[in-house]
Amino acid sequence: MPQTILTLSTRGQGLYEFTDQAEAFVNASGREEGLFTVFVRHTSCSLLIQENADPDMGWVVHRAEGPDDMPAHIKAALTQVSIGIPVARGRLVLGTWQGLYLFEHRDRPHRREIVLHLST
Amino acid sequence: MPQTILTLSTRGQGLYEFTDQAEAFVNASGREEGLFTVFVRHTSCSLLIQENADPDMGWVVHRAEGPDDMPAHIKAALTQVSIGIPVARGRLVLGTWQGLYLFEHRDRPHRREIVLHLST
Amino acid sequence: MPQTILTLSTRGQGLYEFTDQAEAFVNASGREEGLFTVFVRHTSCSLLIQENADPDMGWVVHRAEGPDDMPAHIKAALTQVSIGIPVARGRLVLGTWQGLYLFEHRDRPHRREIVLHLST
Repeated sequence: MPQTILTLSTRGQGLYEFTDQAEAFVNASGREEGLFTVFVRHTSCSLLIQENADPDMGWVVHRAEGPDDMPAHIKAALTQVSIGIPVARGRLVLGTWQGLYLFEHRDRPHRREIVLHLST
Repeated sequence: MPQTILTLSTRGQGLYEFTDQAEAFVNASGREEGLFTVFVRHTSCSLLIQENADPDMGWVVHRAEGPDDMPAHIKAALTQVSIGIPVARGRLVLGTWQGLYLFEHRDRPHRREIVLHLST
Repeated sequence: MPQTILTLSTRGQGLYEFTDQAEAFVNASGREEGLFTVFVRHTSCSLLIQENADPDMGWVVHRAEGPDDMPAHIKAALTQVSIGIPVARGRLVLGTWQGLYLFEHRDRPHRREIVLHLST
């Protein structure tokens, strides 16, 4: 049951891809099959699988004026803090266009902890 | 660790149930307990567990005029690409009224790949 | 593969924390590592991980006049029925401020079944 913590530094609202780090974690395990789970340990950011060719989603960068605290919690509630992705032939079964992102909802820089886990 | 790919053909926006196929996959494994995970390999459709008696949700079939590309990605972000369902006594622990659906967000027909996985 | 059903009684829309019951389930298993999955067997309530210091989210308690049936299903679709949380050193890897909640979308009292599962 390999497990590790990945730390990402964010610089304001938006998407921060970590597909490569997730693949490297699975690869290092030497496992051919299993279930990869990613979990974010915060309540004002979340996880997203989206198109990795062009993840420029307008609603992501739009922000209302004023404090970002409550909107951040609502965005986190409406997206995911945990995603499970099966592993086959030693790789995540992501589709051709799918990338794995940390979805930051706060304006100021943050250090975010993401737990990577591989089950049998 | 049984794993397979289920392909569904969609004909426009809406819900496409695959509860039976998921149950058949679990049944064929011969396992009594475990964790079933379903993952969709696309960024413009998603997964949904909803009432299987009457899944006619108005907001699902409503569509704005114009291209369906950006709305599809937003709908995918706000719903799920991955769902984990425990297995007990050889069956998914779905509630009486719960059905498992592919949630298509695009207008034109698509072939969608769904990965079914069963962990111990 | 420990698994159990937790029953919660709700008294109208809002958040009902069950972090302690989840931790107790993991603790009773004696496992140091694994993947904890929680799944709710209903289509008009869901699961939420949010700040346990102050989970008073305005949008949660706001309700439109009239029947709560369709809004309940929409809220359930936009949140989660299933969440996976890795376990490390015998505990859920929740962040300091994260709590695990049943998110009730109906006005009247309900008994809700939540399946707790621990994978290797």
